[in-house]
Amino acid sequence: MVRIGVYGATGYTGFELLRLLRRHPRTELVFATSESAAGQTLADLYPVPWEVPLVHPEEADPAQADVVFLCLPHGASAPTAVRALEAGIRVIDLSADFRLATPEAYARWYGLEHPAPTWLPQAVYGLTELYREQIAGARLVANPGCYPTGTLLGLAPLLQAGLVADGPIIVDAKSGVSGAGRRPRPTTHFVAVHENLAPYSVGRVHRHVGEMEQEVAKLAGTPYPILFTPHLLPVSRGILSSLYVPLRDPLDTAAAHALYAQAYKKEPFVWVLPPGQTATLAHAVGTNRCVLSLHPLPEVGHLLVITALDNLVKGAAGQALQNLNVMAGLPETMGLEA
Amino acid sequence: MVRIGVYGATGYTGFELLRLLRRHPRTELVFATSESAAGQTLADLYPVPWEVPLVHPEEADPAQADVVFLCLPHGASAPTAVRALEAGIRVIDLSADFRLATPEAYARWYGLEHPAPTWLPQAVYGLTELYREQIAGARLVANPGCYPTGTLLGLAPLLQAGLVADGPIIVDAKSGVSGAGRRPRPTTHFVAVHENLAPYSVGRVHRHVGEMEQEVAKLAGTPYPILFTPHLLPVSRGILSSLYVPLRDPLDTAAAHALYAQAYKKEPFVWVLPPGQTATLAHAVGTNRCVLSLHPLPEVGHLLVITALDNLVKGAAGQALQNLNVMAGLPETMGLEA
Amino acid sequence: MVRIGVYGATGYTGFELLRLLRRHPRTELVFATSESAAGQTLADLYPVPWEVPLVHPEEADPAQADVVFLCLPHGASAPTAVRALEAGIRVIDLSADFRLATPEAYARWYGLEHPAPTWLPQAVYGLTELYREQIAGARLVANPGCYPTGTLLGLAPLLQAGLVADGPIIVDAKSGVSGAGRRPRPTTHFVAVHENLAPYSVGRVHRHVGEMEQEVAKLAGTPYPILFTPHLLPVSRGILSSLYVPLRDPLDTAAAHALYAQAYKKEPFVWVLPPGQTATLAHAVGTNRCVLSLHPLPEVGHLLVITALDNLVKGAAGQALQNLNVMAGLPETMGLEA
Amino acid sequence: MVRIGVYGATGYTGFELLRLLRRHPRTELVFATSESAAGQTLADLYPVPWEVPLVHPEEADPAQADVVFLCLPHGASAPTAVRALEAGIRVIDLSADFRLATPEAYARWYGLEHPAPTWLPQAVYGLTELYREQIAGARLVANPGCYPTGTLLGLAPLLQAGLVADGPIIVDAKSGVSGAGRRPRPTTHFVAVHENLAPYSVGRVHRHVGEMEQEVAKLAGTPYPILFTPHLLPVSRGILSSLYVPLRDPLDTAAAHALYAQAYKKEPFVWVLPPGQTATLAHAVGTNRCVLSLHPLPEVGHLLVITALDNLVKGAAGQALQNLNVMAGLPETMGLEA
Repeated sequence: MVRIGVYGATGYTGFELLRLLRRHPRTELVFATSESAAGQTLADLYPVPWEVPLVHPEEADPAQADVVFLCLPHGASAPTAVRALEAGIRVIDLSADFRLATPEAYARWYGLEHPAPTWLPQAVYGLTELYREQIAGARLVANPGCYPTGTLLGLAPLLQAGLVADGPIIVDAKSGVSGAGRRPRPTTHFVAVHENLAPYSVGRVHRHVGEMEQEVAKLAGTPYPILFTPHLLPVSRGILSSLYVPLRDPLDTAAAHALYAQAYKKEPFVWVLPPGQTATLAHAVGTNRCVLSLHPLPEVGHLLVITALDNLVKGAAGQALQNLNVMAGLPETMGLEA
Repeated sequence: MVRIGVYGATGYTGFELLRLLRRHPRTELVFATSESAAGQTLADLYPVPWEVPLVHPEEADPAQADVVFLCLPHGASAPTAVRALEAGIRVIDLSADFRLATPEAYARWYGLEHPAPTWLPQAVYGLTELYREQIAGARLVANPGCYPTGTLLGLAPLLQAGLVADGPIIVDAKSGVSGAGRRPRPTTHFVAVHENLAPYSVGRVHRHVGEMEQEVAKLAGTPYPILFTPHLLPVSRGILSSLYVPLRDPLDTAAAHALYAQAYKKEPFVWVLPPGQTATLAHAVGTNRCVLSLHPLPEVGHLLVITALDNLVKGAAGQALQNLNVMAGLPETMGLEA
Repeated sequence: MVRIGVYGATGYTGFELLRLLRRHPRTELVFATSESAAGQTLADLYPVPWEVPLVHPEEADPAQADVVFLCLPHGASAPTAVRALEAGIRVIDLSADFRLATPEAYARWYGLEHPAPTWLPQAVYGLTELYREQIAGARLVANPGCYPTGTLLGLAPLLQAGLVADGPIIVDAKSGVSGAGRRPRPTTHFVAVHENLAPYSVGRVHRHVGEMEQEVAKLAGTPYPILFTPHLLPVSRGILSSLYVPLRDPLDTAAAHALYAQAYKKEPFVWVLPPGQTATLAHAVGTNRCVLSLHPLPEVGHLLVITALDNLVKGAAGQALQNLNVMAGLPETMGLEA
Repeated sequence: MVRIGVYGATGYTGFELLRLLRRHPRTELVFATSESAAGQTLADLYPVPWEVPLVHPEEADPAQADVVFLCLPHGASAPTAVRALEAGIRVIDLSADFRLATPEAYARWYGLEHPAPTWLPQAVYGLTELYREQIAGARLVANPGCYPTGTLLGLAPLLQAGLVADGPIIVDAKSGVSGAGRRPRPTTHFVAVHENLAPYSVGRVHRHVGEMEQEVAKLAGTPYPILFTPHLLPVSRGILSSLYVPLRDPLDTAAAHALYAQAYKKEPFVWVLPPGQTATLAHAVGTNRCVLSLHPLPEVGHLLVITALDNLVKGAAGQALQNLNVMAGLPETMGLEA
């Protein structure tokens, strides 16, 4: 059994992780922390009968665990990561603290001095399908953001093959409200969301632009600007993104599907739909799958890729558990099949 | 033109009132107040192009108005009412401060010493269809609660005719989320509400029970206990209630419809559906109508009345404007026809 | 392995059953039928990657299975049941065809002559918690309706203890749209449902009234009339019901909870919430649990029981699988734990 | 009074038009037709108390009206238009039958031989803000499609100024379900739509691509390809579109706003949001406004325009009534102010 500690168990991501861990046959939860709800149990906060005790993070000893998951806000996560890492415990960080490669990038996109820059070189970007080998041996995994996960899986085959032309890659993304976190805000009030669709952080200002552009450049060997329009969608879960990719040479349907089939043929959690089908949220919500559909538009020199995932599963807790399986040498799909 | 002041213009009720007043041809808005947003305009808070300036309530002079509407929390409303009343200005109070007839009842249901008990005898309960004449001459109108409006219009013909048997009257009510107010709370977070249905304040504890029992006793000349189960419904607006009424003698369909037709034959805003039809939220939302459908169950000695209204219109701002029309001698439907 | 055949695999209930069976470690699907989609696979109809072949029901041989589930419309289900039963195959029928004890009751509530009256005496009513022993040995299980499941689990302890007074038991129930079936109708169009709440089949006319009254009489040893108000709720799944039960003698909180705790202490799928908590849809959706909360109102001689379940799981496919586990001697929670 | 006939009164568009006409002070409804509901009234079909009689279209005499509105399916609309036009009656056609300029384009996009090609040269494209003068004198107005209305108002200032660079204009659009019509289909079933987001007719296949490209070419004097991704959104009403426009020369915020302010300074129904604000569905739903927000991205050579409207109002019935006002010499905002 792999002994697990979870920091920040009461947000949507932490709760989803605990839900998944309950079904995982080879892990054992040794602690779950909450600053605001220490002393309570999960059943006090969510409509579930799980009497999981919540301890204050200062009372949790990371050394009791083999691996700790950090479901904490950025800025708060890094110090906890350091404490665990220095105790020799492996860390899967679901915050943004170790996703950007340099303190400068972190300062630019998050407006903070990085709390633990010396650990940045150790961090492996936890997009399992792309960095599986490095993750297997990593001490510190930076679990990707929800938007970047779908975008990068949708773009990777094109970028790696050097097919993308100049000009911005346009990402028009729509996210369920759980992506905005559990703290009540005017923007997540039911009345504000229902019967509405609200773009936000439009253009090149959302923090995930930095993460996406960094990873796109790594995959392509050259930078591409991303034009990113996230929207708040009146659903609880899921992200669906349209990726408008200008191509150096037109791809037809057969070529596009061959490229993606080759790239993802062994991937249990990437589902490339057959030609003629279109990805929807319903293909992905409640699963750890990233679903892709390909829409070649050779007459205008573009490939449109539509990608869907569950922001709390493949976009957060599910991918984190997938990474744990990789790190622990377990079957990658364990506990994630449903 | 009737000069209008609105206190508390930025909550859902205040905003709805301003929306209705814009279409009312014989009123003129002289001020709209907000404590938290003074100095801003309505267009800063809501997605509308209405540059209505918001002033701090202490800077609003009630004497500039002929009538003021109070869309303030209970407890905060009464002192503002007194200020206006003492300046000779008529008041329509949408809070609960003047709905209960005695300071004792107020203390029991609201847990506060009444802020202005000497004004209680002046207050007229503003359920227009039942107290039209008193409202016409009132200085102080206590606009009814959203749940009581539908319940009382649904029960009044039976109570006034002395038809209700002993035993509790059961009211199973479902309300849209705007009824919970605009302040973000965990219970109004989109993720908490969507795909959910949540009863709350079940039994005889919701504050509107006191208001309903008071008014039921007035209508019947004798008290009846009410068993009240409100629910939070995943819609933005509307209240639909099932009223299970035990009868002294069974009523059949013809008799039930004759009774209600007689009671409401001249009412522009009470819509009694024909036999065989059932009230739904969609019959009422966006209008000032209270919709009723009658379901006689003589074999079990009950009449089931289903009642629907828009909690922000007939359940709050619309009825307040209806009362203004009555007070100002204007056609009762003015500005409310849509 | 228990070999399973599923008739009617493409409706919501059939699909949910296939989804559950995929996670069940001791069953093997030998066929799944569809009249309209024979020759296709499940992936052609639902956004899932499950290439389960669909065969025409006439091409399915029940004798290949140990147990067949019937997810067919009433009237169509009984002949298929007979075919399997005569081949010696055990049947779990999710339709209404074998729920009512007599052909007369069936004719009254379903307007049809019963297609297989000689099999009615063999049928066991499949409310697992109440008829577990008979189910274990049954050849033919009549899986309960979605509304009756919650209502009967909510009422059973009171009825069995003889505590219910005369007068109707009032059941105010709210169901998600999947309960109305997958066939598109004007009443299930998104625009008709969203931002609406619509009661239907109000009073004593819904077919489940017959089923509920039959079972209530069995549990109490004496008949009680039920006054039933179902509503269509703008959610996909779940039923929440308020049961207003008049009592011979008042029950206080401690006594009510003691009664239910005793009744359900060993039940893995009945969750009685502690005093002070209220059942919501979110407690139940996605699980096989029936959730109960108790709200004693001794001052008006009633106990209010609020009950929630997932209409497709505990209200249909989940309970069917629970019954299979009982029939096959497997742990009752197998495949249903999540 | 302008005498009005409405063909096809019972679909969502026809019903919305009747709703708007009720508030219009200078029109008189002389007939409303329905093939399927002839002999019934509007109150039989919708939850409203409007006893508007519905006649069979063959019993409606267009000559009783001054103007007829056609809310009919494409293909069926043209013959009705011809009948009215030949009687000398002016026609506002809300179908697609007269939007495309040539029979060839109609055949390509709608797969039908045009039913009345000789009338095509008479048709004026009814985007009021762009063709107001021609509309004023038109006998036949082709009311624009819902998607084109928002797209064209969002693009027109750029196109007319010759600022758009080569390369496709990308339109990522999201529509509420009323846009799919009132006939129940699997794709509009509540369960299929709720908690989902589904792109459809992706790329360059949706019929509105033809209409948009025709009008874009007229405005720019040169053709541009459009890459169009419509989505079905889980709301009842509204369209929000992201328009990604490549520019010949970068525009900064001041220049972009100056351009649009100039273009729309006198338009009552185009609302250009100030810099820093973002258009949402909530800005537009329930109104006849088209709302625009401008997001210059000079570093990648694009202007992102976000546009929102109510598909049934400015996208259909509201714009049709706006056109009627223009044709009849009435104030353009009459009946549309709310």
